[in-house]
Amino acid sequence: MRLFYDIIADKRDGKVLSEEDITHFLNSYLSGDLSDYQMSSMLMAIFFNKLNDMELKVWVERMLFSGEVLDFSDITGPVVDKHSTGGVGDKISIPLAPLLAELGFSVPMISGRGLGHTGGTLDKLESIPGFSVNIPKEQFCKMVRTIGVSLIGQTPEIAPLDKKLYALRDVTATVESIPLIASSIMSKKLAEGIRGLILDIKVGNGAFMKNREQATELAKTMKAIGERFNTKVDVLFTDMNEPLGYSIGNSLEIAESINVMKGVYVPQVTELTLRMAAILLVSFKMAESIEAGEKIASAKLSSGLAAERFKKIIEMQGGNPAVVDDPGLLPKASKRKDIFANESGYINRMDALSFGKALVQLGGGRIKKEDSIDPSVGFIFSKKAGDYAKKGDLVYSIYYNEDFRLRNSLEYLARSVSFCQERAEKKNVILGVL
Amino acid sequence: MRLFYDIIADKRDGKVLSEEDITHFLNSYLSGDLSDYQMSSMLMAIFFNKLNDMELKVWVERMLFSGEVLDFSDITGPVVDKHSTGGVGDKISIPLAPLLAELGFSVPMISGRGLGHTGGTLDKLESIPGFSVNIPKEQFCKMVRTIGVSLIGQTPEIAPLDKKLYALRDVTATVESIPLIASSIMSKKLAEGIRGLILDIKVGNGAFMKNREQATELAKTMKAIGERFNTKVDVLFTDMNEPLGYSIGNSLEIAESINVMKGVYVPQVTELTLRMAAILLVSFKMAESIEAGEKIASAKLSSGLAAERFKKIIEMQGGNPAVVDDPGLLPKASKRKDIFANESGYINRMDALSFGKALVQLGGGRIKKEDSIDPSVGFIFSKKAGDYAKKGDLVYSIYYNEDFRLRNSLEYLARSVSFCQERAEKKNVILGVL
Repeated sequence: MRLFYDIIADKRDGKVLSEEDITHFLNSYLSGDLSDYQMSSMLMAIFFNKLNDMELKVWVERMLFSGEVLDFSDITGPVVDKHSTGGVGDKISIPLAPLLAELGFSVPMISGRGLGHTGGTLDKLESIPGFSVNIPKEQFCKMVRTIGVSLIGQTPEIAPLDKKLYALRDVTATVESIPLIASSIMSKKLAEGIRGLILDIKVGNGAFMKNREQATELAKTMKAIGERFNTKVDVLFTDMNEPLGYSIGNSLEIAESINVMKGVYVPQVTELTLRMAAILLVSFKMAESIEAGEKIASAKLSSGLAAERFKKIIEMQGGNPAVVDDPGLLPKASKRKDIFANESGYINRMDALSFGKALVQLGGGRIKKEDSIDPSVGFIFSKKAGDYAKKGDLVYSIYYNEDFRLRNSLEYLARSVSFCQERAEKKNVILGVL
Repeated sequence: MRLFYDIIADKRDGKVLSEEDITHFLNSYLSGDLSDYQMSSMLMAIFFNKLNDMELKVWVERMLFSGEVLDFSDITGPVVDKHSTGGVGDKISIPLAPLLAELGFSVPMISGRGLGHTGGTLDKLESIPGFSVNIPKEQFCKMVRTIGVSLIGQTPEIAPLDKKLYALRDVTATVESIPLIASSIMSKKLAEGIRGLILDIKVGNGAFMKNREQATELAKTMKAIGERFNTKVDVLFTDMNEPLGYSIGNSLEIAESINVMKGVYVPQVTELTLRMAAILLVSFKMAESIEAGEKIASAKLSSGLAAERFKKIIEMQGGNPAVVDDPGLLPKASKRKDIFANESGYINRMDALSFGKALVQLGGGRIKKEDSIDPSVGFIFSKKAGDYAKKGDLVYSIYYNEDFRLRNSLEYLARSVSFCQERAEKKNVILGVL
């Protein structure tokens, strides 16, 4: 076995690490023989010198097999999942998961929580009274086999090495590394025993990836990892310069998701949900084209079957399924403040980052992992970028509970919406595929 | 105060750190508020993105004032020191320190130990029976004020932050960074309260700096730090492709140093000793030219005054000064093996790195910091690079105590000397100045 110092020095000097070196290094970290301070200097060296395809494959493999890998090989239909790199108002997982189950996919979906200005699927689901994202693994697998879908949080059995590494990256400025991001996501997703993954890479000021170039590098890296593990990865690049859809905030986003599941056409949200479903349908030869796939998926929404499937999920995870028929049962904020246009014109910018940060101030997000969340607060938009507003028109409403939180929130919103006089074309939320 | 994460991320992203950031970061590390794993990712980021002059000044300042800074401002003559980046057979500090004292300089010299293939001044001094390099600081300062010179090891009071940082760099592959090397050396040297420093940067396969380009970068960095702290730094680049002088090994190098002090002209060793003394004489306007300075210095050696000064040092540090008159009192190895030329020709290479490693195998150096040293073992050269040897001529002798150690040593020496048929010009040990 080579010295840890020499292995770090090789990566630092741009050399390619051998399978033996990476295995020794990562296994020693998991066992505690390699210290945090040696791992963090390695992570920083990787930030600069990256990992090539071979190194990345071994890195992912060690993370993946550091814990349990679910086995759904007994399921005949395709087992798939969706992952988004995160943004403001991104609730697509919620309508998409039951829709995919309805379309014949099996969806063992393990999601995350919100941190900073981005929201998390788990927090949104927990705004449904009684809903548990921490059900036992056996129940999770059983749900996937019986109703085709379950929505939970990461369990300690899945990729424990990733958990340990992520905690270290989070305090050593080594989060923003494409091979480390890609290997972290992929090791967890591959541990779900999936055969296909639709990856939604958000691009824009409210997203982790600020430009298309970075986004493309991440997409290619994740696709390459998928290929090495016989898992098809489809990639969609979507806009995150403005919040996604017309609602942000945990219970407000559940309500919007329910609308989508019931067949209501919610711009951006329905569009993305259908497109992702269609991509998977085409990928697994269940539709001949994206258009055909979208039609099939759209019919499942109109029929109300996706909404019914969501009720089953809620019921089996301890929640109150009546919220689907009556979203009024979701937590509601006690106060509302309406924001009106102070001039007439076309809205040319609704700043995703500002609204994300304003939501945290309202109590709807967290700054530190330990923070608790108020599920009821958030924003509902009446206008979005590209819309025309007359002076005095309602632009958006703020749902809040405490006055001081409203005040803090408004500070972030001061320059969040801007107007222009020329009509600008409404930008498509879908930017492209890889 | 900014988050540690953001400060690390700034350096990682190539931004310039503010004085406040660096001070906060380093003070927090010394106090224990910043963890080793955060510091090691910062050190690796510095390896890649370096520190600019302003950052480096603050970095050195924090290290310097993390401990005690000696004050010799009451001394009227120039207070100076010498530092070498380390090599094989490099004993220059030993004849130089008493010579400088004899020339009117005050020399508070704090040196290091050998590690790996390079030797250390402290280990060499300790081969003198009774000599202590750990005398109290008060006695050290008193010696500098009375006899103009004292030779000790690093004390806990000097730059404790450097000590903590160095221990971390040593296990995280962040040793080989020019700003970190320069700041480590300079913080310790500046803490001696000196006004001038002669820096001997070794270049070659037996040195830390493998090429002139790296050596120049290090030299410029250290000179810049010196300027910011009103300390004149003179730089000499010297060859370390072959061992320096005709002896390597701790007591053998003391014996060679004593010869130099007594006025015996030992090629390379006397030459370097005189040149460094002359550079300092010129720097402090005590000589008009290098040639004139070398003449003044040479006279001090011929007169025997430097050797007398060395006797005083030994006496005041608890050693037996009789070794100066009778080097036979130094520890002697029990056995000798002579190595003869197996062909006729000009020696075109005597490999410094191989001889350094072979010395460690004999017991004359250490691999780990805890290893103990056999002061008696080593090599004496009869020929050096550029010399002609007839087949059967003595090339060098090995002084050893244990047969298995000789065998291990010989493995490193198999290809350490090579011959050629064309007469090659003898290379000068002095490569140049900055």
